[in-house]
Amino acid sequence: MTAVGAVPPVEPPSARRTSLGTVLRHVADHGRGSRAAIAGATGLNKSTVSNLVAVLIELGLLREVPAEAPPRAVGRPGRLVELRDGGVAALGLEVNVDYRAVLATDLTGRVRARSLVEEDHRGADPETVLAALADQTRDVITDLARQGLRPVAAAVAVPGLVDVAAGRLMLAPNLRWRDAPVAELLGAALGAPELPVRVDNEANLAAYAELRDGAGRGCSHLVHVSGQIGVGAGLIVDGRIFRGASGFGGELGHITVDLDGLPCACGSRGCLETVVGQEALLARAHVSVPPGVPSRRLTQTLARQARAGDARTLNALRAGGKALGVALATVANLFDPDVIVLGGAYAELSPWLVPPVRSELRGRVIAARWSTIDVAVSALGQEASALGAAALIVDDVLADPAAMRAPAA
Amino acid sequence: MTAVGAVPPVEPPSARRTSLGTVLRHVADHGRGSRAAIAGATGLNKSTVSNLVAVLIELGLLREVPAEAPPRAVGRPGRLVELRDGGVAALGLEVNVDYRAVLATDLTGRVRARSLVEEDHRGADPETVLAALADQTRDVITDLARQGLRPVAAAVAVPGLVDVAAGRLMLAPNLRWRDAPVAELLGAALGAPELPVRVDNEANLAAYAELRDGAGRGCSHLVHVSGQIGVGAGLIVDGRIFRGASGFGGELGHITVDLDGLPCACGSRGCLETVVGQEALLARAHVSVPPGVPSRRLTQTLARQARAGDARTLNALRAGGKALGVALATVANLFDPDVIVLGGAYAELSPWLVPPVRSELRGRVIAARWSTIDVAVSALGQEASALGAAALIVDDVLADPAAMRAPAA
Repeated sequence: MTAVGAVPPVEPPSARRTSLGTVLRHVADHGRGSRAAIAGATGLNKSTVSNLVAVLIELGLLREVPAEAPPRAVGRPGRLVELRDGGVAALGLEVNVDYRAVLATDLTGRVRARSLVEEDHRGADPETVLAALADQTRDVITDLARQGLRPVAAAVAVPGLVDVAAGRLMLAPNLRWRDAPVAELLGAALGAPELPVRVDNEANLAAYAELRDGAGRGCSHLVHVSGQIGVGAGLIVDGRIFRGASGFGGELGHITVDLDGLPCACGSRGCLETVVGQEALLARAHVSVPPGVPSRRLTQTLARQARAGDARTLNALRAGGKALGVALATVANLFDPDVIVLGGAYAELSPWLVPPVRSELRGRVIAARWSTIDVAVSALGQEASALGAAALIVDDVLADPAAMRAPAA
Repeated sequence: MTAVGAVPPVEPPSARRTSLGTVLRHVADHGRGSRAAIAGATGLNKSTVSNLVAVLIELGLLREVPAEAPPRAVGRPGRLVELRDGGVAALGLEVNVDYRAVLATDLTGRVRARSLVEEDHRGADPETVLAALADQTRDVITDLARQGLRPVAAAVAVPGLVDVAAGRLMLAPNLRWRDAPVAELLGAALGAPELPVRVDNEANLAAYAELRDGAGRGCSHLVHVSGQIGVGAGLIVDGRIFRGASGFGGELGHITVDLDGLPCACGSRGCLETVVGQEALLARAHVSVPPGVPSRRLTQTLARQARAGDARTLNALRAGGKALGVALATVANLFDPDVIVLGGAYAELSPWLVPPVRSELRGRVIAARWSTIDVAVSALGQEASALGAAALIVDDVLADPAAMRAPAA
């Protein structure tokens, strides 16, 4: 199999390229349809749509299927087009503090291959970790090839501040990485220069996955907050990842909730992470942490103890939930979201965290009288960030299908 | 003189109407130019530009001026077009806790008429206050007429939560107004149904004014925070006012900075306003407040006492500045702005507030290492919100000039 990459466009897409994207996006959003129906819905004329559909079929993105003939129909049945689930695939990767995930979706967003490895990356060398991630990715690509799918690009989720344009991770306090050229290192380790690699923050990507396929479907303004080791938040504004002026927005874990609180790995004091990060919860619940236990297991321990009615654990979760609620009330006063999604470890701990969070939101959000903020729990699990990463790649293909190379002969 | 209003378009502007806006916006941004230069810069063809310019001249938005002939030029000098500063005017109004402001700008943004009345509106009836604002507005309109300017629409700034689409003020704790139909009441009091009235939050509009003509010129992500009676913040994201899902974003004054702090007028506790709102500063500085003194005078008292070295005032400003800095660090961690502008009373108190604010930002913003956030002081004074309101109306005209009615004969 040949990995086929996206060619970065050297200029903005022309009107024709934009129209290709319009047609492909329409089919992706509305499912199979006739050329006439696509023309009617997009406002393009019918012969233009026929030409564009032909190009999209040649690119391996659409395919033709026979329409079901209505009973007693005269003449031959019409032909419809639909998204080709056997064509191209999008790679969504994640490096987190104690696991690495790789998955691939087709253009319909269905996961077609996946791989998860639990390993502690704290203080490990970025080059070594990314080489291991590249091995995992190659296995997934082999699996895809067996299904007749070829990956067009990869996006990697990382737990820290990212310079998206440069593909660099600037700072990940919990990994203890600084200024790591993730896109470059992973690209070199993959040895597939035709496969472009993007890098983004894991919390941003998890938020995007919730918007696309999770608890935030149909919303436009969403806040996703997840706790595993750190506390990350992803903000969606008007349906898009919110980045701020320099790409460093959404750092909920490092907002101050206790003026004279404990020092934080980031250099500040009293950050939300020092109160409701996993370490803080475990310490308050008096859970001993043997070295090398993955954080997911520790979350399970907290949940088990809470279910068993352990008073210290319940207190820890009550205090943590209150601090989380105060911080989320701040986010709500500033951002005014439709929905707040609790993900990561907070999804598993939601039976104990949701009540204090809701109560603080009711008491502290000035607009709470007019617009109730929905508090939802993620159902995407540990794959949320990798799913969001793959969704970004799918978006790229839908926005500018002609940027893709045709399959090698 | 005849007030001539904007007709709300019943459908999205057509391509031709959009092109009218393109030409007008180009002239507004680049100053006078020839039809050929406009065609070159906008990509429209020259005869189209000539037609569009003719329409814009007829609408009273552009005018023709002779080009300066180069020495020894042969033939008649060319003709340029420029924005007509004698054509239409935009009304920017504000009702605040203890003053009312009305101003009008021409399309170039220059203030052509203004009126400020100091009066305490706390607990006053919205209908009475808006009738007084309408009187003030009529005086400004008369002043405009003397200069040959006709207002096309008005925007009103109010200190509270606004339903922008409905033109209603939902809640203004410091005015003690609730669910006031401001656009409707003001429209009725003006008795000029052809003059459309918009309503928006004063902090949003002050932020927009800073972006357009103040300390945030050239920025795309800006936070404006002002304290007079309350603490208001306006957020600009990608050059536009940020509103959130329901229009209630940017409520900085009501984020919690002290978990077990004092009760706030909004119903919560420990809001930023309870620490660095004017009442809190005055109480800590032991300034006695005789009834009916405008808040601006009280700010002057604080500044005078601080300049004189009064220890209690300096302590109040130090503590307030620290709380403001912690809150702004939270905003910066979430929003990642280019610049934070201190306006309103905070501009006057900036010599004492800026140092603690800068220090908290340095210590608490996780991205502070890579992107320094500029802390700037507003120079627009009490007119900031009204200027922002007028700027919104100017934007409306530039975006869709054909929505305006031609001057009555």
